Amino acid sequence: MSTWEEKYAARAVRMRASEIRELLKLLDQPHIISFAGGIPDPALFPNDSFREAYENVLSGEGAGAALQYSVSEGYLPLRAWLVDHMGSLGVPCAPENVMIVSGSQQALDYLGKLFLSPGDTALVARPTYLGALQAFNAYEPRYDRLAPEGNNMTPQAYRDAAEKAGGRVALAYLTPEFSNPTGETIDRAARERLLDLTDELDIPLIEDAAYQALRYDGDPVPPILALDVERSGGIDNTRTIYCGTFSKTLSPGLRMGWICGAAPVIRKLVLMKQASDLHSPTINQAVMHDVALRHYDSHTAMLRDAYRRRRDLLLQALERHMPEGTSWTKPEGGMFIWVTLPEGMDGGALLARAIETEHVAFVPGQAFHADGSGANTIRLSFSLADETAAEEGMTRLGRLIRREASGR
Amino acid sequence: MSTWEEKYAARAVRMRASEIRELLKLLDQPHIISFAGGIPDPALFPNDSFREAYENVLSGEGAGAALQYSVSEGYLPLRAWLVDHMGSLGVPCAPENVMIVSGSQQALDYLGKLFLSPGDTALVARPTYLGALQAFNAYEPRYDRLAPEGNNMTPQAYRDAAEKAGGRVALAYLTPEFSNPTGETIDRAARERLLDLTDELDIPLIEDAAYQALRYDGDPVPPILALDVERSGGIDNTRTIYCGTFSKTLSPGLRMGWICGAAPVIRKLVLMKQASDLHSPTINQAVMHDVALRHYDSHTAMLRDAYRRRRDLLLQALERHMPEGTSWTKPEGGMFIWVTLPEGMDGGALLARAIETEHVAFVPGQAFHADGSGANTIRLSFSLADETAAEEGMTRLGRLIRREASGR
Repeated sequence: MSTWEEKYAARAVRMRASEIRELLKLLDQPHIISFAGGIPDPALFPNDSFREAYENVLSGEGAGAALQYSVSEGYLPLRAWLVDHMGSLGVPCAPENVMIVSGSQQALDYLGKLFLSPGDTALVARPTYLGALQAFNAYEPRYDRLAPEGNNMTPQAYRDAAEKAGGRVALAYLTPEFSNPTGETIDRAARERLLDLTDELDIPLIEDAAYQALRYDGDPVPPILALDVERSGGIDNTRTIYCGTFSKTLSPGLRMGWICGAAPVIRKLVLMKQASDLHSPTINQAVMHDVALRHYDSHTAMLRDAYRRRRDLLLQALERHMPEGTSWTKPEGGMFIWVTLPEGMDGGALLARAIETEHVAFVPGQAFHADGSGANTIRLSFSLADETAAEEGMTRLGRLIRREASGR
Repeated sequence: MSTWEEKYAARAVRMRASEIRELLKLLDQPHIISFAGGIPDPALFPNDSFREAYENVLSGEGAGAALQYSVSEGYLPLRAWLVDHMGSLGVPCAPENVMIVSGSQQALDYLGKLFLSPGDTALVARPTYLGALQAFNAYEPRYDRLAPEGNNMTPQAYRDAAEKAGGRVALAYLTPEFSNPTGETIDRAARERLLDLTDELDIPLIEDAAYQALRYDGDPVPPILALDVERSGGIDNTRTIYCGTFSKTLSPGLRMGWICGAAPVIRKLVLMKQASDLHSPTINQAVMHDVALRHYDSHTAMLRDAYRRRRDLLLQALERHMPEGTSWTKPEGGMFIWVTLPEGMDGGALLARAIETEHVAFVPGQAFHADGSGANTIRLSFSLADETAAEEGMTRLGRLIRREASGR
């Protein structure tokens, strides 16, 4: 290999990708009961609806347009559907407030690119979504801790810490409901406090709403963007940037999400998209519109019933099999339960032992901490776990934790 | 609007996107004969092949997988097809040398992100592909001129100029055949000289092969990557990074392209893709594999016949209607003819007049110059022009140029 390649090696983006990828491979091993992958159950995808939609789009007069280049902001009928959808969540907006992206991962990448310079500070929860850290890491920020429930530092303390590190506080990011990895949701008062904080810091607040549609019980809380519209008098005055996705509801394989926010911000992100990949696939946007229009409500209702049952089964199995000193969250939605292990136990070491001796898998919690803390936590996903998997998996995991705790 | 939004306005990516977008809108006006958009003719898309492929993929056992998350490097059967395809072009390689991207625009974005720091120098032809400038601009390089045919500065002169500007020479970029905008192709000797130059500068050479499959006459020239493999002894020793796309052959609406290069570079780009959008749509990759496997050769043969005829019609019409002092390229492939106007005539001013008085459209050549030169050139695309459009369009344009030349 010639030296230019080595010369640039140092510029390789810092990521902890390999960790997740290795874990996801475990799913392919049939003897492992896996609670690792945070992915939807493919048995619940609306295959027939998608098949019909592709057939519709490619049979009609619009076939040529569906296979052609299109505009960077996205397919207008889909954006119009999303305007209605956001309206139903309490966010009055117009098509110029909505753009289509290739999954909300792309939204996080663009927002990092727009707002972060090397050395700037991003405020994130600890733990937080690993994909957000991966997206932001490319822009070389430092991280400071955001406490979603509101026990934060003062704005001045955040500013001082950021300046000391040679940058400024550039953005705040969080998943307000059923967060990945903890499953926790913050209430309306906490959302208002976050708006107070970001108002005082005068920074954008990125609301990752990936699991918003998957609420199994409890009352819905308005999106932070809805509260921001209320206090600021209109969406074009807001600082909240809402990232939505079809990946947890209709299909992740089409890579389709959206960003909703103030029109001037959307316009900049659209220019960024034009330079980075021109636009999301035209045909998939037409198909997603067709499927969403006809099936979104009924399909998400079905998903909520299915995943609610799996959450309940896993919670019951945890109750039955976890030893004293272990605790866990009771999520009102989403796909994840966050387990705190007995004091001093390491989630990474436990995983190695779990795969080897008990043939059960999960994600160690440390991976979700920007600062490498969280060693005694693990994330369990219930999206793929049926009754047998939940019962047998927690039997094995409880047995292992008990053994590890007594062995120390 | 709150001030944070204004504060970040200065960070908006520098682009000349609006210009192209406005021009493309002209295509929608039926009274305008347009040679502006460099897009494939939608009447030539293989609609039925795509319809069957979506039906196949969504009917079989793989439907769940096609709608699910997948790996960042791309769908293995498609990468294996591309390994064969690259082999047929003289580039022996393996799946780890190939990754799937969402159109070659995404390849250019990732390559800019990997190799360019603010103030670095990118070597590009003048004129060059506008989308490449848009992609690179986000990373704030300066540009220096690459003469594809080989009349370049010395490596030391490039280095000195880059250092004086506060960076280093970071990459070279070009479209070696039927380039957008000029339609010109460089020969094997010129390709070897470019490899000599980039060897001496020890920088990556980005080969944009967007139009490679659309050769209408003349002998094929080996890709620069093939010549690099020959001289360096194997693909993992090469510095050339080949960017391919299905946008000009099967469909741009699926947004699918590929990168072929040394495995260590591909690995870094895959990590970058994972952080930026996880992966390209799974279902589209499976569908593109199905269509490419069954129809690529026959479909591209049909396209070459159709576009060859349009190129010939436009060349004949130019011959008939252009006044003295106007010259143009005779491309062996691709979609573009590059016209040099009589001395002192401005392509931008001519376009305004052409739309207003003659109802004919094209792209002014200045847009394709990183340094704003090229005022007396225009780009004509023949991909959408039938016999009537070519004859009537050039009648009008020739009349206008004659009038403008005599009026000065």
